Amino acid sequence: MAESQGYRVLWYTEWLSSQEAHIHAIKRIIFDGYTKYQRVTLAETGSFGLTLFLDGYAQSSEYDEFVYHEALVHPAMLTHPKPEKVLIIGGGEGATLREVLKHPTVKRAVMVDIDGELLEIVKKYMVKWHQNCFNDPRAEVVVADGKKYLEETSETFDVIILDLTDPTKGTPGVQLYTKEFYEEIYDKLSKDGVMVTQATSTRYNIDAFSVINNTVASVFPVERPYKAHVATFYSEWGFALGSKSRDPLGIPRNELSERLGRLGLKFLDEEIFYHLFHFPRYLKEKMQQYKQISTVAQPFQIEL
Amino acid sequence: MAESQGYRVLWYTEWLSSQEAHIHAIKRIIFDGYTKYQRVTLAETGSFGLTLFLDGYAQSSEYDEFVYHEALVHPAMLTHPKPEKVLIIGGGEGATLREVLKHPTVKRAVMVDIDGELLEIVKKYMVKWHQNCFNDPRAEVVVADGKKYLEETSETFDVIILDLTDPTKGTPGVQLYTKEFYEEIYDKLSKDGVMVTQATSTRYNIDAFSVINNTVASVFPVERPYKAHVATFYSEWGFALGSKSRDPLGIPRNELSERLGRLGLKFLDEEIFYHLFHFPRYLKEKMQQYKQISTVAQPFQIEL
Amino acid sequence: MAESQGYRVLWYTEWLSSQEAHIHAIKRIIFDGYTKYQRVTLAETGSFGLTLFLDGYAQSSEYDEFVYHEALVHPAMLTHPKPEKVLIIGGGEGATLREVLKHPTVKRAVMVDIDGELLEIVKKYMVKWHQNCFNDPRAEVVVADGKKYLEETSETFDVIILDLTDPTKGTPGVQLYTKEFYEEIYDKLSKDGVMVTQATSTRYNIDAFSVINNTVASVFPVERPYKAHVATFYSEWGFALGSKSRDPLGIPRNELSERLGRLGLKFLDEEIFYHLFHFPRYLKEKMQQYKQISTVAQPFQIEL
Amino acid sequence: MAESQGYRVLWYTEWLSSQEAHIHAIKRIIFDGYTKYQRVTLAETGSFGLTLFLDGYAQSSEYDEFVYHEALVHPAMLTHPKPEKVLIIGGGEGATLREVLKHPTVKRAVMVDIDGELLEIVKKYMVKWHQNCFNDPRAEVVVADGKKYLEETSETFDVIILDLTDPTKGTPGVQLYTKEFYEEIYDKLSKDGVMVTQATSTRYNIDAFSVINNTVASVFPVERPYKAHVATFYSEWGFALGSKSRDPLGIPRNELSERLGRLGLKFLDEEIFYHLFHFPRYLKEKMQQYKQISTVAQPFQIEL
Repeated sequence: MAESQGYRVLWYTEWLSSQEAHIHAIKRIIFDGYTKYQRVTLAETGSFGLTLFLDGYAQSSEYDEFVYHEALVHPAMLTHPKPEKVLIIGGGEGATLREVLKHPTVKRAVMVDIDGELLEIVKKYMVKWHQNCFNDPRAEVVVADGKKYLEETSETFDVIILDLTDPTKGTPGVQLYTKEFYEEIYDKLSKDGVMVTQATSTRYNIDAFSVINNTVASVFPVERPYKAHVATFYSEWGFALGSKSRDPLGIPRNELSERLGRLGLKFLDEEIFYHLFHFPRYLKEKMQQYKQISTVAQPFQIEL
Repeated sequence: MAESQGYRVLWYTEWLSSQEAHIHAIKRIIFDGYTKYQRVTLAETGSFGLTLFLDGYAQSSEYDEFVYHEALVHPAMLTHPKPEKVLIIGGGEGATLREVLKHPTVKRAVMVDIDGELLEIVKKYMVKWHQNCFNDPRAEVVVADGKKYLEETSETFDVIILDLTDPTKGTPGVQLYTKEFYEEIYDKLSKDGVMVTQATSTRYNIDAFSVINNTVASVFPVERPYKAHVATFYSEWGFALGSKSRDPLGIPRNELSERLGRLGLKFLDEEIFYHLFHFPRYLKEKMQQYKQISTVAQPFQIEL
Repeated sequence: MAESQGYRVLWYTEWLSSQEAHIHAIKRIIFDGYTKYQRVTLAETGSFGLTLFLDGYAQSSEYDEFVYHEALVHPAMLTHPKPEKVLIIGGGEGATLREVLKHPTVKRAVMVDIDGELLEIVKKYMVKWHQNCFNDPRAEVVVADGKKYLEETSETFDVIILDLTDPTKGTPGVQLYTKEFYEEIYDKLSKDGVMVTQATSTRYNIDAFSVINNTVASVFPVERPYKAHVATFYSEWGFALGSKSRDPLGIPRNELSERLGRLGLKFLDEEIFYHLFHFPRYLKEKMQQYKQISTVAQPFQIEL
Repeated sequence: MAESQGYRVLWYTEWLSSQEAHIHAIKRIIFDGYTKYQRVTLAETGSFGLTLFLDGYAQSSEYDEFVYHEALVHPAMLTHPKPEKVLIIGGGEGATLREVLKHPTVKRAVMVDIDGELLEIVKKYMVKWHQNCFNDPRAEVVVADGKKYLEETSETFDVIILDLTDPTKGTPGVQLYTKEFYEEIYDKLSKDGVMVTQATSTRYNIDAFSVINNTVASVFPVERPYKAHVATFYSEWGFALGSKSRDPLGIPRNELSERLGRLGLKFLDEEIFYHLFHFPRYLKEKMQQYKQISTVAQPFQIEL
């Protein structure tokens, strides 16, 4: 079997629920093993090129990692009038850091990821993602528990970005989607501070998406749910943005246009920026069915 | 195994390419068999509820059939200033006809589907889709080859809607995506006539999507590619709109607002209407890689 | 998609464990639905022809249903010197009854199956299996709970055959593999009475196979585990035979030869008869690891 | 995801035909890559432990590699009255060589495998298979094309064992199942020489199994098809034995008993030895449907 034909034998299965899955032919495994925290599989897929999977789910792929990372990073960065200090929790691929560093106002960007073994794999095999941004003099990479780091730091940040795995039942990540954690974030944000978190799929986990947004809204005076279609996730992917003062939909139009234009992005532009925050009626109705918020005492968890 | 637990045994597999598939647990088969033209499977899926599959692919599901059908029908209908006579080729589920009949200007809507056996299954089991619109006095349902019907009719129409299966290699549908067929449609459209066709996935068949749009553009003075995220198709779904005179992006804003408002839709609204036609940079770049058009002599075909 | 090409779309998945499965392309669903007791799927598979699946598992297929049914029925029938009255519990396909009736000594064969709806499906679609044996004047078919029937009958039988689904956790079938149930059977067997039960796969459920044999052995003075390769089950399938007096390996050779020869079988012959009872060393060693027996108080259950 | 739970994400799919497959959850990939000749995947499976897959098919697993290797090696070795010089073509795992060296008469065993890269992987990761037999002073391992080696050698051998991948369409292995190749083997066998080849599945490739046996029978005066149930292959696996003089079924009973007893095997014993060569009626009838032999001009090939 020549490499070009090595398909259809090894399949990665993403269980979107117990009744639905997406399967990828794996052309070649670059790495498969268990770090202290998770199963890491880096593989060449048939359709998406090089793809990183953590504990059963694609985190991002060569095909469109920039869609997810642009959508995660820039709305929060642009909502802040002048982001200088940025904290990323998670974000092991380095692409979130890469996007943050595109903003010329940034003076310091700290990325805290718990999984040092994953970082070594990323550094070695995923240059297309990090593009050596780890070496940028403004960047600091810390291997630590992000929650602990946040609690213990005396620094404040202008923007905090949560690039985490989903709050799946039984995983420690569940705590990083609670009201108490968002309160901790609020405290560590500077005056006009902005936070954003990935918020699961609006298709497969509309309950999780709604609850995460409810929870951020219970802490921040300005809150906006948003979503972008990420092909690698087979659905529109959700996010939750919390802001201490400025509303992303209230950014002066010429400021938005100018700052966005300077970034040279592949996915996000002005028209799309506004559309991110616009939901069709049927989705708004679904979101309104979920009123709860996630707390340490009663955390929301995704069950498969 | 109680019905509520009857999952994970029977799976419907949609092969998006030879290296990627989406699999659905089938809770119950309502119908599975072969008509003269295709394999028809109507099933309760685990995630999308009742879903119609033809020859291996979901055509629409209870979950969001309205997204696909609203996106297919209304941009073309709204582009025409006053659509009175409408022709639908394909559209067996009856939902395309249902959407057409929402427009109060419509006096006559003809739906031509080749598969009479499929229509019987739809009438019996898919009331949620057709909502008995087949009985509307303005509607006429014809069991016939759509291409032949079009060639032989002496009527002209204001809007022609092509709700077809994909141009997969070796299927007769390939002919319904050629320049010659679109020329036939042009001839049967009245002065301000508008046509629209589904145009496959912008993710899995960006080549097909581009070629279909190129081909429509080679016949019609106004042409617009557009897309909408349809969860049941795991991707953004593409369409191609051809118009003899009016540009969908040139509809007077107050007219658009008023006519759209009257329809009471679940997915499409004004903001989304404009966004349909807006593509991110990376997709525009991909589309520009495909210059060819599909002709009878050299038809474009999807190969799996 | 012509019927001859209608493959690779709908797949039946048999979960042999949580980590292994066998998948069949379904060419056509003949019946899929839920009776009061189970999900019944009758389908044309790509490799085995018409196949009956109950609650997720192939029960038998056109390809080699006779292997399973000959292996289930004849060792017990031949172990009895002159079987006249036979009771079958389960056996909905009718093929077990068909094999029983091949023995010319049989005067009365009662088949008790709990699922009357299944029997109707079998009668209608599975003539290849039952070959109209339900109409044999010696046969009586009773729709009833086999356990209850056995407890309430005042009849005794020469041979009792248990043709049941596996003792999967949470199913009522679990009770039909307990010591107490086998004691009830012992009581309803005549002097030289023989019982046999299917005993799951020697590959996927060697623990269940061993425990079932241990349990039969705790009740019957003569007990023999045996197995046969059934292609439709992808493994060697196990059985447990209990006898009040005669040992299957002690049947006079000329009697065995003569009686077996008269049956005109496709799978079982003299050489194979002896080999059924012979296990390779590695399997014997595995079997010896399981010492327990299944009781009403502590029933053995297969967990997936 | 702890290692113990790392299941159900990555699946190896063995396509038994285009309409049937067996899937294995992969707990961990030990090696996955392409040598010059094939895709090599060494993985911990959920059900079979460490398993070697070549180009899409399990070659052998920890669970029962000894069944396959004992069945391949010993019938031929025992058919020869006193095997001293043995040639193995293929057999990369080293387990065939390991079994050969158990025979005390063996003075020289040459193993010729074309894939040197595979051998390095085996040496490093598959000690359970080869048990360091490569270092036995009687063993010689040659990295070469087996066909060429055989043609060029001036040596003769008492037993030649073909431990090859299947004759799948388009692979070079097809030539190693032709009459011409078996004639070459005949020439390189000593007076009482014996050959054996694996001969695919009697279930999934009964045509291939029959043709291989026909072809061996067209060259050797004594020929015996045989089979053994190998759980890792989900079916009974076939073999073809050709002998210049002695018939395996004619080995003096006391010689067989003594030689076999000395080997200390886990699967093969006297009873099983005879049963290997015994086929049930329905399989014999299937085999008789295939009359052809495979030649260089018209080679038999398995098509999927």
